[in-house]
Amino acid sequence: MDDRQLVILLNQMTLEEKIAQLQQLAANFYEGAESGGQITGPMEAMGMTDQMIESSGSVLGLAGAEQVIAVQKAHLRKNRLGIPLLMMADIVHGFKTIFPVPLAIGCSWDLEEAERSAAVAAKEAAVSGVHVTYAPMADLVRDPRWGRVMESTGEDPHLNSLFARAFVRGFQGSDLAGDKDRVAACIKHFAAYGLSEAGRDYNTVDLSERHMREYYLPAYRAALDEGCEMVMTSFNTIDGIPASGNVKLLRELLREEWGFDGILISDWGAVKELIPHGVAEDEAEAALKAIRAGVDIEMMTACYVHQLPALVRDGLVDEKLIDESVLRILKLKQKLGLFENPYRAADPEAEREVVFCEEHRTAARELAVKSSVLLKNDGVLPLSRDQKVALIGPFARSGDILGPWSWTGSMEDAVKLETAMTARVGADHITVAEGSGIETMTEEQWQEAEAAALAADVIVLALGESSEMSGEAGSRADIRLPEAQRELLLRLKALDKPIAVVLFNGRPLDLGGVYETADAILEAWFPGSEGGAAITSLLYGDENPSGRLSMSFPVSVGQIPVYYNHFNTGRPVDSPDADGRYVSQYLDIPNEPLLPFGYGLSYTTFTYSEPVVSSGIMSKDQPLQVSVTVTNTGTVAGQDIVQLYIRDISGEVVRPVKELKDFAKVSLLPGESSEIHFTLTEEQLRYHHSDLSFVSDPGQFQLFVGPNSRDVKSHSFRLEKAAVENIRHVLS
Amino acid sequence: MDDRQLVILLNQMTLEEKIAQLQQLAANFYEGAESGGQITGPMEAMGMTDQMIESSGSVLGLAGAEQVIAVQKAHLRKNRLGIPLLMMADIVHGFKTIFPVPLAIGCSWDLEEAERSAAVAAKEAAVSGVHVTYAPMADLVRDPRWGRVMESTGEDPHLNSLFARAFVRGFQGSDLAGDKDRVAACIKHFAAYGLSEAGRDYNTVDLSERHMREYYLPAYRAALDEGCEMVMTSFNTIDGIPASGNVKLLRELLREEWGFDGILISDWGAVKELIPHGVAEDEAEAALKAIRAGVDIEMMTACYVHQLPALVRDGLVDEKLIDESVLRILKLKQKLGLFENPYRAADPEAEREVVFCEEHRTAARELAVKSSVLLKNDGVLPLSRDQKVALIGPFARSGDILGPWSWTGSMEDAVKLETAMTARVGADHITVAEGSGIETMTEEQWQEAEAAALAADVIVLALGESSEMSGEAGSRADIRLPEAQRELLLRLKALDKPIAVVLFNGRPLDLGGVYETADAILEAWFPGSEGGAAITSLLYGDENPSGRLSMSFPVSVGQIPVYYNHFNTGRPVDSPDADGRYVSQYLDIPNEPLLPFGYGLSYTTFTYSEPVVSSGIMSKDQPLQVSVTVTNTGTVAGQDIVQLYIRDISGEVVRPVKELKDFAKVSLLPGESSEIHFTLTEEQLRYHHSDLSFVSDPGQFQLFVGPNSRDVKSHSFRLEKAAVENIRHVLS
Repeated sequence: MDDRQLVILLNQMTLEEKIAQLQQLAANFYEGAESGGQITGPMEAMGMTDQMIESSGSVLGLAGAEQVIAVQKAHLRKNRLGIPLLMMADIVHGFKTIFPVPLAIGCSWDLEEAERSAAVAAKEAAVSGVHVTYAPMADLVRDPRWGRVMESTGEDPHLNSLFARAFVRGFQGSDLAGDKDRVAACIKHFAAYGLSEAGRDYNTVDLSERHMREYYLPAYRAALDEGCEMVMTSFNTIDGIPASGNVKLLRELLREEWGFDGILISDWGAVKELIPHGVAEDEAEAALKAIRAGVDIEMMTACYVHQLPALVRDGLVDEKLIDESVLRILKLKQKLGLFENPYRAADPEAEREVVFCEEHRTAARELAVKSSVLLKNDGVLPLSRDQKVALIGPFARSGDILGPWSWTGSMEDAVKLETAMTARVGADHITVAEGSGIETMTEEQWQEAEAAALAADVIVLALGESSEMSGEAGSRADIRLPEAQRELLLRLKALDKPIAVVLFNGRPLDLGGVYETADAILEAWFPGSEGGAAITSLLYGDENPSGRLSMSFPVSVGQIPVYYNHFNTGRPVDSPDADGRYVSQYLDIPNEPLLPFGYGLSYTTFTYSEPVVSSGIMSKDQPLQVSVTVTNTGTVAGQDIVQLYIRDISGEVVRPVKELKDFAKVSLLPGESSEIHFTLTEEQLRYHHSDLSFVSDPGQFQLFVGPNSRDVKSHSFRLEKAAVENIRHVLS
Repeated sequence: MDDRQLVILLNQMTLEEKIAQLQQLAANFYEGAESGGQITGPMEAMGMTDQMIESSGSVLGLAGAEQVIAVQKAHLRKNRLGIPLLMMADIVHGFKTIFPVPLAIGCSWDLEEAERSAAVAAKEAAVSGVHVTYAPMADLVRDPRWGRVMESTGEDPHLNSLFARAFVRGFQGSDLAGDKDRVAACIKHFAAYGLSEAGRDYNTVDLSERHMREYYLPAYRAALDEGCEMVMTSFNTIDGIPASGNVKLLRELLREEWGFDGILISDWGAVKELIPHGVAEDEAEAALKAIRAGVDIEMMTACYVHQLPALVRDGLVDEKLIDESVLRILKLKQKLGLFENPYRAADPEAEREVVFCEEHRTAARELAVKSSVLLKNDGVLPLSRDQKVALIGPFARSGDILGPWSWTGSMEDAVKLETAMTARVGADHITVAEGSGIETMTEEQWQEAEAAALAADVIVLALGESSEMSGEAGSRADIRLPEAQRELLLRLKALDKPIAVVLFNGRPLDLGGVYETADAILEAWFPGSEGGAAITSLLYGDENPSGRLSMSFPVSVGQIPVYYNHFNTGRPVDSPDADGRYVSQYLDIPNEPLLPFGYGLSYTTFTYSEPVVSSGIMSKDQPLQVSVTVTNTGTVAGQDIVQLYIRDISGEVVRPVKELKDFAKVSLLPGESSEIHFTLTEEQLRYHHSDLSFVSDPGQFQLFVGPNSRDVKSHSFRLEKAAVENIRHVLS
């Protein structure tokens, strides 16, 4: 079907049929449809008629090739114009083969692996009948109370942008129409959902427009620049208006300024939520505000189908708005080839071969290895083959290591730590005891753990959060490990055995008490289906940890938000002439996080030379060449992530004390050195000024090179005036 | 001297003399001036010449009639044109007679007493030679980590506005020129300083302009509407630009839009701090940005005197800007009558009579009584005359009850709790023991406390924060009582005696553990010079507590910010159809604070009738009459604060779940009832729309009446369309 035919099709549709295309319902409205069964319960609850369902445009959360084919087939029998359904679902970090959670992937700093993880997820989803995934999430996050930080790649706009692009490439490929192994991506949540106040999910967001453009929008924009087909609204307010009814945000910025003409979908129920938010008195006003703002598809509430017909007839909504939305939906169906083959890649036989296949599991394992971050190591890691290990903790035998948003993933199929460690060194070298549950400890559990510990050379203590403790609506005001687990650690510590803690969790934790007590800490996050295998290979040194934090670990919850790219303030605590008291500080804790952005250890050590910079002056036509020699000064091979930051000393608005601009992975054998080269251009010094122009300023800068955002070597340079004035001239 | 003469004077001044008027230095540049002594140390450090000091315009922090007269006299001998100095100082909650800290005064909800406190402070300051006070602070506060919340009246824009006006009236009186007992007020800190990120002082502020106008600006504006003579800039950034160099905030909003033509002064060092903030490369750029933004006086740094002469000569700063600033300073000197009498009210003899006089101390005591809030009472309070009391705790004998910003106040002269309680019931009824220090406990301290407790019928436990733990730069990430004091409470609890805790502190604390353990809690804040006497009268029931919190007490630091006038979100936890998980909530604590805004107990109880409302419809010409009958159902006389809130169910932007609109104090004898009347007008329903217009919306509203923001009775009404459209018409 070509564009002309789409318009003809549109013109054949009644107003009600058009509006039904804008409705998205969950699978339970369709299941059993192939057998002619009626889903009367949910239909009645939402006031859905048979005709609305028969004319609807998309389905949420349906997968499995046979089921999808059956539903599509049944739908096409009933749909007057033969318009196929779009099958959408939350495929966030894997379909059946679950990869580490996105925050963990962020810590891999590995864009190729991230892309591969999305490609694997897409392939499994596609063959199971899914056309669109609600991913990636590109929300910048600074508040670990918010459970959904696990779904973000972290606190840095540049790194998030690179990952957003990588995921979009992985999901969509380079030829979405031709490559049936791919699914359309939907960037979310537009916008600034990560700033939910007090870390409470769905809560108010307020920030200046300039700040939003500078820090919160770049990663969404990067996804769109990469060709991302869809955008999802966020639940929060922006400048007092919920995103799903925010004309300035959606219509003016996203559609008109950025030129996005793909499908904009509300998050679950977010159109009707304009009522409790308090910007709509009823469903009619909610529908009116959402369609005017530019929301094409209403997910899981029914304001559009119930209210838009009358709003159009009463002249309050121009039917052209509806037509535009329908056309966007039809165009994606066209692009996916659904008019020609409404089942696309859905194939029960291929599904059995592809889904959770060995190749995919290998990819998941490799990414889990790269996503884990060694936070501390007093020498207890790596373990040696001949040590007697007590594997203790609620995550020793747990399959709850997939993390939130693992929809079709199976905890039973997850490789547990116990299984993998036993396979690695034999059952005679491993004694396993739970020690405690996630939040409780019985005396029996303790006694079993104590016995195991006493008989062992070393303790591997697998602690963490259950997957329900993070993810959507998983906000915690206390971000420490639950008390029972901290107690378990302290009791084991008293036995005077070396303890290596492995953490399974979805957010940066307050590790107060834990960090000082453990001899080593390996942050495994929620590592996915192959978690146990990946962690085992790291524990035994088969692999060398190379993950680096993409989100700061706070000293305590009272320090939130804490992030590396903060402003200097007028009274920085680290100023040479700082007053004893009257500086920007806490009385009781330092300003710096426990573990900074970019941080992570290895089983080897690296040294950095002073950076060598081609010139003290940069101009538009003359970028700086920056090089640094990194040497592996340890005894095993390892990989480091060499990070390049800048600071604009004086801007038209204040600039962060550091901004990540580039990074490079370097793999080195013991004793080996490598020279890493970066090119730093004037373009990378640009930022949003108070008039929202995106330009650079002449003047003093610093650049920093190092293994994390804290331990850097710096170099000063100037950006020349002439070049910038030239740029301003060109832009004005 | 009249306006014409001021201009003549201005025209006689050299450029350097003009610029020197814009310089403010601390007293140590002037002390000894009367004896011809040279303050060479500080002068050299700041590059100050004799001529700059001789031509300077104002002094910071000089008081004492004799000293002020001597300095002024010496200055006038040297100043070429005989221009007197303005004497400015931080007189925040009392001069020598210290009143409760402003946050405590906020809890009195007593505008007359607040005004009186400022009038007393003004009188003592004036007679001591002060002309201007850097007060009131009108910063709205929602983060108790920030030490400076003690200097604010709380979290509500309406209540803050009323207090800002009351303080300005108290400081300035109705005739600043004629009434020598008054001083000029300086509203601070413009703007939104209270939103310092992560509760860390001087830290970044970012918010939308609309949100700033709606919540953060009204109290500053109210002070200016009351005639406040001066404004002080804040330390923080607003939309990426520090306030002291922010053209949009100062020049466009404050000067042009609001028409403020008084003196705008930087906060201490804030002009030069444009450099570390990162919007100025050097002092010249800092001076340029500050003068362009509209800062008249530079406090304690010297960018203006060093840089403005050349900037004017080079044409980068129009001399007219300098002239405007100088003229504002001269005008205030004129208004204060300094050209006629440069000593104004300074009078060593009157100073001895007025300062810390009995009348003033009585005022301080009365306000301390009204500012204390009874947070809990299981019946242990009031104490009876014949009980044997163990008075324990680091604040039992402490004079550190004045709080921060008690410059000339004397801890030695403060009425300590021990002194007042002993005076009330005799030494034989009171045994005193420290029990612990603020942050430490020795075994000896404990044993003394234990012995005292065991011999007593009841324990009064005086706990809290030292004054250094709050105030400027007094940010705490952990807002619990220090561990030693919590330990003291727990140990005493084990003795099974009733415990009444009295809290001395500068911020809402996390009372976890304390609230459940104590049998009664009286929040005394930092009650000032007469603190012990006031608290004693409350403990023994000579007075009945009537204070009500003007800032929420969080459940824990992980809940911050928590405040009563929040938005509803799209998924409110208290919705009847709320999903079990997918609502805006924490997994581990409730959304609501431990103690809400407006909350406070009494020794009696009150019941409220259902509110009676004159109509279900409001229009512009027809306000609502709201009445409620309050009955004292207890056995002693008491005072309640009847609070009226509204909620706009659906706005053009989201509206708070409650907004305080009015309140009334009612004093009732046991069994007595009183009908309280409120008038609610369309004007009170207006708010800032997304286009920044300040209008109301037709539609559904709720009003609430109750003794605090939580325990209310509600009533629905509609605002009629016609009236509003009329208003829109008039405004457009």
